[in-house]
Amino acid sequence: METVTQLTNQLVASYAKAGGINHLDGKNLPSKRVVTALTCDLLRLLFPGFFDEKLIHSSEIKVETAALLDSVLGTLEDEIRKALEYQPPDGLVKKDIATEARKLTVDFLGSLPRIRELLQTDVQAAFDGDPAAASKEEVILSYPFVEAIAVQRLAHELFLKNVPLIPRIMSEWAHARTGMELHPGAKIGSYFFVDHCTGTVVGETVVIGNHVKMYHGVTLGAKSTAGGQLLKGRKRHPTIEDRVTIYPGATILGGGTVIGAGSTIGGNVFIMDSVAPNSLVIYDGLDMRVLSKNDKNAALDFQI
Amino acid sequence: METVTQLTNQLVASYAKAGGINHLDGKNLPSKRVVTALTCDLLRLLFPGFFDEKLIHSSEIKVETAALLDSVLGTLEDEIRKALEYQPPDGLVKKDIATEARKLTVDFLGSLPRIRELLQTDVQAAFDGDPAAASKEEVILSYPFVEAIAVQRLAHELFLKNVPLIPRIMSEWAHARTGMELHPGAKIGSYFFVDHCTGTVVGETVVIGNHVKMYHGVTLGAKSTAGGQLLKGRKRHPTIEDRVTIYPGATILGGGTVIGAGSTIGGNVFIMDSVAPNSLVIYDGLDMRVLSKNDKNAALDFQI
Amino acid sequence: METVTQLTNQLVASYAKAGGINHLDGKNLPSKRVVTALTCDLLRLLFPGFFDEKLIHSSEIKVETAALLDSVLGTLEDEIRKALEYQPPDGLVKKDIATEARKLTVDFLGSLPRIRELLQTDVQAAFDGDPAAASKEEVILSYPFVEAIAVQRLAHELFLKNVPLIPRIMSEWAHARTGMELHPGAKIGSYFFVDHCTGTVVGETVVIGNHVKMYHGVTLGAKSTAGGQLLKGRKRHPTIEDRVTIYPGATILGGGTVIGAGSTIGGNVFIMDSVAPNSLVIYDGLDMRVLSKNDKNAALDFQI
Repeated sequence: METVTQLTNQLVASYAKAGGINHLDGKNLPSKRVVTALTCDLLRLLFPGFFDEKLIHSSEIKVETAALLDSVLGTLEDEIRKALEYQPPDGLVKKDIATEARKLTVDFLGSLPRIRELLQTDVQAAFDGDPAAASKEEVILSYPFVEAIAVQRLAHELFLKNVPLIPRIMSEWAHARTGMELHPGAKIGSYFFVDHCTGTVVGETVVIGNHVKMYHGVTLGAKSTAGGQLLKGRKRHPTIEDRVTIYPGATILGGGTVIGAGSTIGGNVFIMDSVAPNSLVIYDGLDMRVLSKNDKNAALDFQI
Repeated sequence: METVTQLTNQLVASYAKAGGINHLDGKNLPSKRVVTALTCDLLRLLFPGFFDEKLIHSSEIKVETAALLDSVLGTLEDEIRKALEYQPPDGLVKKDIATEARKLTVDFLGSLPRIRELLQTDVQAAFDGDPAAASKEEVILSYPFVEAIAVQRLAHELFLKNVPLIPRIMSEWAHARTGMELHPGAKIGSYFFVDHCTGTVVGETVVIGNHVKMYHGVTLGAKSTAGGQLLKGRKRHPTIEDRVTIYPGATILGGGTVIGAGSTIGGNVFIMDSVAPNSLVIYDGLDMRVLSKNDKNAALDFQI
Repeated sequence: METVTQLTNQLVASYAKAGGINHLDGKNLPSKRVVTALTCDLLRLLFPGFFDEKLIHSSEIKVETAALLDSVLGTLEDEIRKALEYQPPDGLVKKDIATEARKLTVDFLGSLPRIRELLQTDVQAAFDGDPAAASKEEVILSYPFVEAIAVQRLAHELFLKNVPLIPRIMSEWAHARTGMELHPGAKIGSYFFVDHCTGTVVGETVVIGNHVKMYHGVTLGAKSTAGGQLLKGRKRHPTIEDRVTIYPGATILGGGTVIGAGSTIGGNVFIMDSVAPNSLVIYDGLDMRVLSKNDKNAALDFQI
């Protein structure tokens, strides 16, 4: 036990030292666990019957929806209140926080029917765009994309309402589950589809048009973040116009970079400039070396 | 409470509108939660003693295996029956579904010993291929690859038996855990190994030979899916012959693309054509620009 | 029941056959489940107040820390003992294993304050380096990087102490959650930051300096592992000097490859040679083809 006391003293002394990684005696942060549970409940409200064990009949749906909404409303209001207390938006004074939390929560839940309409276009795009999809049910049950885009569209609503912390906790939960990071700030049009998802990153100030199809490993990122916090709020990420397709591993950087409507971007391409509408951008393989393994240089490089 | 009623009415009205994302009053889908639990149990049957807390002795193994198999048999049969009712394969009439579900389940469980033999070659390949592996036990306990390939080989059996939905739910569970998407349809030979896994995607109609080694971020994909559902069933993804090695980030597309036996594909390469046996394909760096940061052009691009 | 008996017999016969994928009648391996729970507890010790529901006050922190440390000490000691029994380091005889397990555990827990100091620099680097970060609290609560680097720094301590299996179980847990694989063997300097994380792989013998910033999909890997187990212990992975930035999708291979201090490596670049300090390495797009989609060749490749 003496050992534990000594270890404790060292560690507590380390907590006391100036440390940006402590959170003690501060205001209460939103709970990661509660926000995660809320996100699951919101997915159940968006896709009724898909994430429940038993068959739901229309006759019961109203009662069940009301019960779930009631629970979500109370819990979400609490978390939003904590987030606003922690980091109040400009102009919001302390005494108005509770009222504001209530208002934001009700407005947000009122946007669910509109979010469902958008998601319907995404599921359609996924089914239309993937010959391996056997049915829309398979898409909703097994495609990581559906979860990722549903969470982004939910988090985007909260982001637009300037709710701190919660949108990012939600989007990072989806990132952990799907491997795709869609920042809550990104503006994403209808009929969006990302196949496979893993490794795709869509930055905070990205703008994406309608009918855009992307694959895994695609980066829509910032050209340079050497300016760090000084760049906050600036458009740092590209714009993707309507009907663009982007193949796996393409990296597109920069706030002024616009991929024109109807273009196709090939796999593994690296782009920092705008591309005219209806373009095809590819590496055509001319500059790639194909050697026989009997070639000595080849053997040197790969020790084979 | 009035607010909740109003929100509920809006949302339920949205459910009632024609919507591809509802699942109400339909037939019961297989349960994602149950299929996930089944997959874990199947992994325990494949790797006895590895995923259990206590030491298992040979004397107990028969009783424990029988109990687990009995439980898996009943549960899997239920889920397969639901999947067949939901989307009956051509020629299967309703009254025969229960019998067919039983038969498919028993056949599938009878294939476990054969799957174990294949997995033994994969574990061997992982150990042989990675100098960082300290033991085969470390490989099984900590390499995401083992989980991913085990689930693929299980799901592939169900895919071959035309079981709807369940194989994809299984493979997407593994995708979420390992970051690698191995479609249940892919035909994968023995002694397969993918190191690191994250971001690797292997499409539905891929064919992979024996002793193939790949890294993370490798795409074996379709050249174009603009044809969408019209392409269903066509061979859209490449063939990788025996003893090929594919480095991280390589993208290989197309149903007619064949990577000849014994070839090595370098990192970040983009390929849409076949490669002769025993080739080495690399970007050799000749076309890459290496600039000093005092160079003005460099400074313009990256603002450094 | 007869079916189950038959299936059991087949499967148990398969267990009995020489099989590298069984673990029966052997020594007890460390438990994956327990090591995972321990890792979560260690994260709570590193970031007090961040992963708990209720507000922690300074007055309670000592008692709570002591209780958690006491529990971690006992459990970790058990798991380390099992790991040492399973795979005793050279020169450690059986009768000394329990004492050694105790010593290693206490030493390891004594290093937590030092690990916290390093992590503080990482959180600072993340906040400074990402304009999308609204606060350090947001970084700790929602950035996968923080979890990944915290687990790596913990696992690295155990790796240096030659504890078998446990460091890799820990790092693969973080890999599964964040998509980034930081091998416990890698030496990583202060003020490290990886944005987005998914698909980044840092190999066992990598050395990284201070103030290094990387993105997702970056590989610091081995040039060839065809030598397999013969290469064990050799430096196979690159060295990244101070103040280097590496953009998404870059692949850097080889034990002799050194990226000189202050350099910037562009996206999707493939490097197998050293780069002088203060260099900028990019694909400048000169060799990329940008075609109008009316071009016939383009149409052939992509069927558009």
